[in-house]
Amino acid sequence: MTARPDPTALAGGVAGPAALRPLVETVLTALADGAAARGGPVAAGRPDELAAGVRKVLDGASADPLSELTRLLAEGAADPADPACAAHLHCPPLAVAVAADLAVSALNPSLDSWDQAPAATVLETELIGELAELVGYPRETAAGVLTSGGTESNLLALLLARDTVLAADGRRVELDGVDPARRPRLFASAAAHFSVQRAAAVLGLGERAVVPVPVDGAQRMDLRALAAALAAARRAGETPVAVVATAGTTDTGAIDPLPACADLAAEHGAWLHVDAAYGGGALLSDRLAPLLAGVERADSIALDWHKLGWQPVAAGVFLARREQSYASLARRAAYLNPADDEAAGYPSLLGRSLRTTRRADAFPIAVTLRTVGRAGLGRLVERCHELAGYAARRIRSHPELELWGDPALTTVLFRLRGLDDAQHARLRRRLLATGRAVLGRAEVGGAEVGRAEVGGAGLPPLTTWLKLTVLNPHATESDLDRLLAEVLRTAHESG
Amino acid sequence: MTARPDPTALAGGVAGPAALRPLVETVLTALADGAAARGGPVAAGRPDELAAGVRKVLDGASADPLSELTRLLAEGAADPADPACAAHLHCPPLAVAVAADLAVSALNPSLDSWDQAPAATVLETELIGELAELVGYPRETAAGVLTSGGTESNLLALLLARDTVLAADGRRVELDGVDPARRPRLFASAAAHFSVQRAAAVLGLGERAVVPVPVDGAQRMDLRALAAALAAARRAGETPVAVVATAGTTDTGAIDPLPACADLAAEHGAWLHVDAAYGGGALLSDRLAPLLAGVERADSIALDWHKLGWQPVAAGVFLARREQSYASLARRAAYLNPADDEAAGYPSLLGRSLRTTRRADAFPIAVTLRTVGRAGLGRLVERCHELAGYAARRIRSHPELELWGDPALTTVLFRLRGLDDAQHARLRRRLLATGRAVLGRAEVGGAEVGRAEVGGAGLPPLTTWLKLTVLNPHATESDLDRLLAEVLRTAHESG
Repeated sequence: MTARPDPTALAGGVAGPAALRPLVETVLTALADGAAARGGPVAAGRPDELAAGVRKVLDGASADPLSELTRLLAEGAADPADPACAAHLHCPPLAVAVAADLAVSALNPSLDSWDQAPAATVLETELIGELAELVGYPRETAAGVLTSGGTESNLLALLLARDTVLAADGRRVELDGVDPARRPRLFASAAAHFSVQRAAAVLGLGERAVVPVPVDGAQRMDLRALAAALAAARRAGETPVAVVATAGTTDTGAIDPLPACADLAAEHGAWLHVDAAYGGGALLSDRLAPLLAGVERADSIALDWHKLGWQPVAAGVFLARREQSYASLARRAAYLNPADDEAAGYPSLLGRSLRTTRRADAFPIAVTLRTVGRAGLGRLVERCHELAGYAARRIRSHPELELWGDPALTTVLFRLRGLDDAQHARLRRRLLATGRAVLGRAEVGGAEVGRAEVGGAGLPPLTTWLKLTVLNPHATESDLDRLLAEVLRTAHESG
Repeated sequence: MTARPDPTALAGGVAGPAALRPLVETVLTALADGAAARGGPVAAGRPDELAAGVRKVLDGASADPLSELTRLLAEGAADPADPACAAHLHCPPLAVAVAADLAVSALNPSLDSWDQAPAATVLETELIGELAELVGYPRETAAGVLTSGGTESNLLALLLARDTVLAADGRRVELDGVDPARRPRLFASAAAHFSVQRAAAVLGLGERAVVPVPVDGAQRMDLRALAAALAAARRAGETPVAVVATAGTTDTGAIDPLPACADLAAEHGAWLHVDAAYGGGALLSDRLAPLLAGVERADSIALDWHKLGWQPVAAGVFLARREQSYASLARRAAYLNPADDEAAGYPSLLGRSLRTTRRADAFPIAVTLRTVGRAGLGRLVERCHELAGYAARRIRSHPELELWGDPALTTVLFRLRGLDDAQHARLRRRLLATGRAVLGRAEVGGAEVGRAEVGGAGLPPLTTWLKLTVLNPHATESDLDRLLAEVLRTAHESG
């Protein structure tokens, strides 16, 4: 009989891998068992039933908590590797990226100082350089950092914008130090991500500082409206701090007209940030990259490799065109980056991030880029785009279904004819509760209607749509047929 | 001959574990090989030599990038599982926590909506409840969230403090909307973490808003100075927004007098935040928990389980005593937490976090708590505390060494007699470059001198100390003896 392994064994060092091996096998077995027990994209049942089940396991005694809790996590997951789990920009990660992430966990490098992450510091620096080239920035003068996702990237972008534009006269930005007459303003489309408003609130600019710019029928920022809003702000003595253009809105994948946004931002002295958390994946494909033409003119860009990049969370990336934009974030901490260590050649990434301790999230991306290749990843993006196009054609040709519009990237919005908003919301919950499908929902104006009204008096009212987000490149056309059939069957059952 | 596996295989689903198994074995083998090649706490060499080596591998062709890059990461790591890697609050993670983190990567739940993380949502909610009890908050009324670490927790705390205190009259906080005469002020000791200043800058309060309160000779906030600073601010018409008390400073582990800080914050209507990112680990030990007596009176608390909790990064925890403190962070996003879904029983954690996409970092902590147990973790904290005490006694009794003072938690500051500040900095770099040891450094006033001067005219000037941070509970007294001998040998070599 073998002795019970030490529960406090460490993952690192020469002995760590041997301690990890049986535990990792326990996890893999429990993941497979949990997925089989789930038997679909999500476990059937109401949230309170699921919660009671989880609490029961947590409160009970267990001989092998790692096995039991992993099985619980898998059985109670909404698993994006199942083609019927297609609600959110929530990707199924590649096995190779997940395996690479295991190395990160075991070694536990932290990017806030070189002496916690010697090789990881170099790897992140090199990856940021490669990604700068991907977006069209000059590698030598760009800078960036891995982030927890688009929300942190957007916050970082607007922080640097605030400090660059408002403190251009050398004054610090503080609630009781800014001339109230300068009234900072941010401009983003009405379809931009809510994290823009949240960032404005965090930064002390206030949500009111965000001027929502109307969108056209395809959910793209209306350029005449943006030009008018910027001009009106200037006339009122307000300070346009930033224009946030979206390259891939969450709901429809709409991409704002980037070159024109760049022109307008430059004209008014505003920072241009492009939130390409979703659409940035198109840059991996030669065929789709032209959708983001002009992105290289942005002052900063957000990318999310945990969306169209098939990485485990977190794999956000923030890029700034000019390294000196980072001035206001520079910090000297005697215990992390003393000046004499930097002079002796020890680099520091501390001033790149809003965080201090920071996981080496660059590593799985670097491994993936070298295993699958940029071209291979581009084919995965193209495949998801094709699948979304297929679903859209099936929906358009189906008498009971209504398509919002052609997919810009990989989301497809649709409705069932004859059902109202509340019925769509209930249908989505019924699909969840039966464990048949995890679909998203969106509230947007109708595209067909909207298009006719561009430049008119207003946009049509918001309507609830079901949303299919295709991020699984191994899904098939048959999977999508089955998913749509399941939606119709469930709607018919519900009467 | 077997076919080459598909490099785009997914980690999730029923088939994921089988795809992962050979890749995980590749990683474990490469980790062991890399650690053996490193042969110590850190690879010997200058940073530019290491960088050139990493770039060469990145630029070359590779038949197996996962293996090659993992080996590179391990060989080029500063591995906290080696007892001679003892610079920072950078822990060696437990194998069981790392294995649990693999499940998180493979399933990729994201906590921003229930339908991306059904079981993970419940697990995080339960863990936050358990940790609320650990710090002494009433479980029913407390709230919290997992964060990327103390820096994000401190930012979140000061955001909620800002919005609670400044917007108490119902007005929103914005740069052009706050009465300049209110002049918000934050009070933190001079030994508090630099993330307090950074948070003030991010929040638009400005670094100038942070009033640095002098410390006593033991690096604890001087209470008479805090009382005087608060009173002076009130007299000047400024608004005391928050007092930040530190429970475990980065350099010396000093714990501010929490009950008195709570009294003073209450007297002046300020929020009390306790940064227990380091010292929070003491709560796991019945013997050491009294060091944090009074922490339960804080309005918010930061804990880091990737410090004295042996989790892989990130495992930060933010706790608020009152759930309603979160009001200003509440968000309604139609695609994530529509009101009718919440009414139908689908919970949402969106309003708990500054992030949107969010990894299930609660899971490895929950597994660890059930595998090792609170008492088992407490013994690991106690062991690190004992080891630090042992090192301190050895240093005090050695004729060539000077001890800063008794360790409060698990850091030990010391100097070599006869060496000046620059020589200490060079000695530390020499230990790094020879691959012999990774020690930290700190710039603080002398404790023995300082103690005598409490209440006197001022504190002694800052001095550079070497810092030994004991976070490896499996280190031995002999390991520490060897480490100190290595420091002396290297100093003697350098002449």
